[in-house]
Amino acid sequence: MKRNIKLLIEYDGSMYSGWQIQNKQENKTIQGTIQKCIGQLTKEDINLIGCSRTDAGVHAKGFIANFFTCSNIPASKFKYAINNKLPDDIAILNSEEVDENFHSRYNCLGKRYIYNILNRESPSPIMRNYTYHYKHKLNIDDMNEGCKYILGKHDFSAFKSSASNVKDSVRVIEDIRVITQGDFVTIQVTGNGFLYNMVRIIVGTLLDVGIGKKSPIDIKYIIESKDRNKAGKTVPAQGLYLDKVFY
Amino acid sequence: MKRNIKLLIEYDGSMYSGWQIQNKQENKTIQGTIQKCIGQLTKEDINLIGCSRTDAGVHAKGFIANFFTCSNIPASKFKYAINNKLPDDIAILNSEEVDENFHSRYNCLGKRYIYNILNRESPSPIMRNYTYHYKHKLNIDDMNEGCKYILGKHDFSAFKSSASNVKDSVRVIEDIRVITQGDFVTIQVTGNGFLYNMVRIIVGTLLDVGIGKKSPIDIKYIIESKDRNKAGKTVPAQGLYLDKVFY
Repeated sequence: MKRNIKLLIEYDGSMYSGWQIQNKQENKTIQGTIQKCIGQLTKEDINLIGCSRTDAGVHAKGFIANFFTCSNIPASKFKYAINNKLPDDIAILNSEEVDENFHSRYNCLGKRYIYNILNRESPSPIMRNYTYHYKHKLNIDDMNEGCKYILGKHDFSAFKSSASNVKDSVRVIEDIRVITQGDFVTIQVTGNGFLYNMVRIIVGTLLDVGIGKKSPIDIKYIIESKDRNKAGKTVPAQGLYLDKVFY
Repeated sequence: MKRNIKLLIEYDGSMYSGWQIQNKQENKTIQGTIQKCIGQLTKEDINLIGCSRTDAGVHAKGFIANFFTCSNIPASKFKYAINNKLPDDIAILNSEEVDENFHSRYNCLGKRYIYNILNRESPSPIMRNYTYHYKHKLNIDDMNEGCKYILGKHDFSAFKSSASNVKDSVRVIEDIRVITQGDFVTIQVTGNGFLYNMVRIIVGTLLDVGIGKKSPIDIKYIIESKDRNKAGKTVPAQGLYLDKVFY
């Protein structure tokens, strides 16, 4: 009988075209890279189910995936065996056997993302692939005030990519806050689900609030408008991390 | 008359053979890379004087260098002009005119280094080039106790690379401490000067104390022995940052 193995995964998305395997075979993906390593170990044709898609350049500290296998490798040893084959920019942090009904995506109850901004005049070579460099001075209190209007259940049509073809745009944001440490500004957002580019558009809109281009209460009006053009720009991928997935 | 321009520099050392230009022309160095950009700007043969050497893979958040120029580019604008030409992994954070007698290396009164350790079982893909991954559980109190014996003026012969040919190995360590934040352990050390590999050997020795292989007071005996073989191993370059230079 096949066992269901759940993986906790960290990756540096800088060199990948995102999580999801794509039709263009030449594009390197996280899913494709890990799936290939597991297949080499178990000599099976593995289908690695991910909790979510992530875009090119987006990172993950706590991505969840699962796969079914007939292999007799102990569940807790998969971590070491897969890491031995993986490149340095992907690592399995934990592997365990779970109920056969567990599905990384369908059973997901919520996710937490973090978005890292370096808020100073000069760029940082060391953090260039892991933060978004934003020069203009930010009013953090105003940004946190704006966050209050995002909290709760709303139709987030104004905060989804125009490329999205999802019909139901209602999502619940359980927590959103702006935290500072030195020159770093981190936006942490937890919700039951996210539309395509939703976190990156929320951050772009909060930055407009932070520089006074928009008022905190404008966030309320933007949500009500359901108009993507009213919201801020989509900030770059390299500041975004999938931090934790809830089941 | 030539003006003396002082630069504050941050770099990600991952892709470089260290600061110093080497005889092997094929080796990419930080000094060589910046010097070439300045030369292109001013059409002069620039000699960029660095405060220190850094090894391959070592990073800097506050490296200081200076150069002389007849160019009429305003001192504060050099930052932008050089950054326009530099690759993403090096950035000038500040540029200013200083007294003609200022010399980045000769006038240096002290330096602060930080060494970042990720102390958890699994490696971190995101931090792989910016921390040393160390699995064994560390006793931070013991490490800080060991630090007390390093403080002050000592002959640090036991903590210098056997490849070093410096005669006077007496240095003053003004501050050394071990700080933790989550899974990260940072060793911060400030002194009037450092021998070749001194910080990396101090960290290797403190790690031996952290896992109980050495006692805190062994640090005292190791210093007294002046014997490199008594100290711990030289930890890898990627955890090390030149943080600040004092004048």
